[in-house]
Amino acid sequence: MSTYEDLLDISQQLRNIQRSLYLLAWDERTYMPEGAVEGRSESKAELSQLYHKKLTSEKTKKIIDELNKESVQAELDEVQKAAVREMTRDFERKYKVPDELIKEMSKVSTKAQSAWEKARENSDFDLFLPHLEKHVELKKEVAEYIGYENEPYDAFVDEYEPGFTADKIESIFEPMKKDLSSMATEIFSKELEPGEDVFEGKTFSVEKQKQFCKSLAEELGYDYKHGRLDDAVHPFTMGMDDDVRITNRYNEENLKSLFSLTHETGHALYEQGLPSDWYGHPLGRRISMGYHESQSRLWENFVGRSKEFIDYIFPKLCDEFSSLQENTKEGFYKRINRVKPTFIRVEADEVTYNLHIALRFDIELGLFRDEIEPEETKTVWENKMDEYLDIVPEDPANGVLQDIHWSAGQFGYFPTYALGNLYAAQIYDTVEQELDGLREQIADGNFDELRNWLKENIHEHGRKYKAEEMTKRLTGEGLDPGYHIEHLSEKYGPIYEL
Amino acid sequence: MSTYEDLLDISQQLRNIQRSLYLLAWDERTYMPEGAVEGRSESKAELSQLYHKKLTSEKTKKIIDELNKESVQAELDEVQKAAVREMTRDFERKYKVPDELIKEMSKVSTKAQSAWEKARENSDFDLFLPHLEKHVELKKEVAEYIGYENEPYDAFVDEYEPGFTADKIESIFEPMKKDLSSMATEIFSKELEPGEDVFEGKTFSVEKQKQFCKSLAEELGYDYKHGRLDDAVHPFTMGMDDDVRITNRYNEENLKSLFSLTHETGHALYEQGLPSDWYGHPLGRRISMGYHESQSRLWENFVGRSKEFIDYIFPKLCDEFSSLQENTKEGFYKRINRVKPTFIRVEADEVTYNLHIALRFDIELGLFRDEIEPEETKTVWENKMDEYLDIVPEDPANGVLQDIHWSAGQFGYFPTYALGNLYAAQIYDTVEQELDGLREQIADGNFDELRNWLKENIHEHGRKYKAEEMTKRLTGEGLDPGYHIEHLSEKYGPIYEL
Repeated sequence: MSTYEDLLDISQQLRNIQRSLYLLAWDERTYMPEGAVEGRSESKAELSQLYHKKLTSEKTKKIIDELNKESVQAELDEVQKAAVREMTRDFERKYKVPDELIKEMSKVSTKAQSAWEKARENSDFDLFLPHLEKHVELKKEVAEYIGYENEPYDAFVDEYEPGFTADKIESIFEPMKKDLSSMATEIFSKELEPGEDVFEGKTFSVEKQKQFCKSLAEELGYDYKHGRLDDAVHPFTMGMDDDVRITNRYNEENLKSLFSLTHETGHALYEQGLPSDWYGHPLGRRISMGYHESQSRLWENFVGRSKEFIDYIFPKLCDEFSSLQENTKEGFYKRINRVKPTFIRVEADEVTYNLHIALRFDIELGLFRDEIEPEETKTVWENKMDEYLDIVPEDPANGVLQDIHWSAGQFGYFPTYALGNLYAAQIYDTVEQELDGLREQIADGNFDELRNWLKENIHEHGRKYKAEEMTKRLTGEGLDPGYHIEHLSEKYGPIYEL
Repeated sequence: MSTYEDLLDISQQLRNIQRSLYLLAWDERTYMPEGAVEGRSESKAELSQLYHKKLTSEKTKKIIDELNKESVQAELDEVQKAAVREMTRDFERKYKVPDELIKEMSKVSTKAQSAWEKARENSDFDLFLPHLEKHVELKKEVAEYIGYENEPYDAFVDEYEPGFTADKIESIFEPMKKDLSSMATEIFSKELEPGEDVFEGKTFSVEKQKQFCKSLAEELGYDYKHGRLDDAVHPFTMGMDDDVRITNRYNEENLKSLFSLTHETGHALYEQGLPSDWYGHPLGRRISMGYHESQSRLWENFVGRSKEFIDYIFPKLCDEFSSLQENTKEGFYKRINRVKPTFIRVEADEVTYNLHIALRFDIELGLFRDEIEPEETKTVWENKMDEYLDIVPEDPANGVLQDIHWSAGQFGYFPTYALGNLYAAQIYDTVEQELDGLREQIADGNFDELRNWLKENIHEHGRKYKAEEMTKRLTGEGLDPGYHIEHLSEKYGPIYEL
């Protein structure tokens, strides 16, 4: 067996373990009985350790060192080079950090998450603060081991959005913040509630919503032969190669489930679009978290919340939920696109969402640039909410304590949500130019051309290209937040009479 | 850390991997989408290999060698000695077999199982024969590596029923066969169909059956905080320490689901009764497959199919399934205890079940004693069916091809089903003597004393005692098939007017 084949072999073994870990995680969030927490966390820890050992073994190191020799590289083709590049990256990010530090972080995470749960329950920031401090301290150490381009925070940006740096994100977010903030301010000043009260006082059978969502995912192109749809408190998608599962939640007071469904289906179509030849291959996965989010956002917002989609779906909804028959599809369209200041990120609309992210990015950057102390985060949060959205959370449960990410030590993750929205806008702009009559197709309930375009141009390439290169290949230019702003102006101008 | 603690540590790590494997298997048989077979089988193979490597590592060997030294043994207490004994047994059964042979068996099993599926579908024994031959050949090799008391087959008996040998089983089965066969012959000669046609022409809502079964498991003492009930084509129980899951199947034409439910609940109560301090401990599991089956059979047959249980449950069934109101509980009791010759083991009643097993045991023994060639199994099967049950299957799908076990190379497993019935009868005889008014308790729907007795006397000891020792501790004597025969005579005498 050649050294390159050895690499593929290890990649396949790692993927086999990872897929098992993913199933354990999926089950934990769907069907696991409440009393099984301890055994499950031990099983997950065991498999994680086996994964880590295999990835950072001396055997892996030898293979990677060999394949990075100039003479060996000269013999590799484009795909092989990319595969070596990505495996080297995965390897180094773990190999460089001492095992002791990884173990300590894992312990801190466990404690921090349970402290965070209590803190949020009691809306008491001080309960969480010492854990936040510990996380930031350890993560600063980690950054030194991993290395970075300009500043420690880059080490974490690179984890979730390879190739990006703090600087680069800042230069994209700064103009975006101004534009979004002024758009939000203008919208809020109108004191206008567009659309009809299509949900108020009505109930929508959860069983019917489930059936509707189940068919809808299939219409969008989701393949149930290689997946399934289940309930979860926080909807998520689990991609396990030939087994890509989506989850959704339902509230009988509204039809929000339609949009969490289109969101998760977007994630799932990316996973199901990865080339099956590359299951277990170093390139057989998503480019970045931002790119993954771009696919979910594209299907949720550019398809799901579009006028054309509502044209298509509203009559079907009226058939299922007869109380909607007293409403118009225009009223429905406006209602599901209402813009409101909200404390909670996951409930935010398209206009304010990226402001919620910018706030978190500002704070993370401040923490790692030593410009903000952990103890100041609560106050900084409140001030920035005031600045961006003109509201101030009265208790930290609705403010600095709302997200799980920091308790898990996931710094650098938040910006990818905003990048996802930006990619989605820029990519959709290109797709619209390339596919004739895309809007008409959506209005007809025909999603094949759009899905195939995304599959051929993005999904099928796995992570052969990095995010920036992919964006240039797709759209001819680097990431430009202007597309997001333009999309919002075009959409919300008419809705809010801007 | 002491060497003994090292042993516990490895045991815990092994259990963590095994628990993951069990979840993968549970999911495969409940919720996995059909297109996910390949990825799942790769993940399972990976984890199995990691498990095998850890169990048979030089590190494990060193620990086990050390702990088996006389000087070290002298320092161990009773539990520690038993833990070392069991881990040594697990280790040796795997360590002694060359990796190459294990890999070959795994490959043969994969091919044999797919060939068996086709063979059964086409009812064509010749499609399966070469795989059966290969399995027997390899297993004979394996037996030489593992070692055995008197003859090669002992090596496999010991896998599932530690401490037993072919001889010992033979000496138990021989009188049992005669007694059962003559009882069956007498019953069949009566041409009597006892009981009323309580199911015929009626339908029983599957949804209602599910609800009923769900509550029933809880009444028997099954703990949903550490488990769940799902659907499966072939009901099974998966014990994962703090997470013990049961499955069941439902047919709207009858209420067989009640008895598969009590059967699986019996298995689950054993798993949920294991001491939580021993999760991951070498002793923290069932004594043997026969003992596991004794618990399922005890709850299925000695509780579930008893007069007293029907006294308790029949009025409740009538409430749920009103069409039953035209029947009597006596009629119902007799109907669910009908004895009939059947080709298929899993459909067999209490009287004929162990004859189905005896037939398989005869054939397995013949194969490994070189008294039967694989190509003769089909004919031997038919002759023995004729001898024991007076019926001859016309096609091998209903005969020699009906069970999956041989295609998976599981020789030595079948006898444990029959041993389970024998243990159950002997144990239940003791419980009845020890617990005053047990039958009245069952008629009142009170299962606590029985469950607690089983928990305290069997479940809580894990595998500290081997099967034979446990049987003596519980009942004061070795396994005696007479209890099974006596139970059947007492029960079926009145039903069949014997």
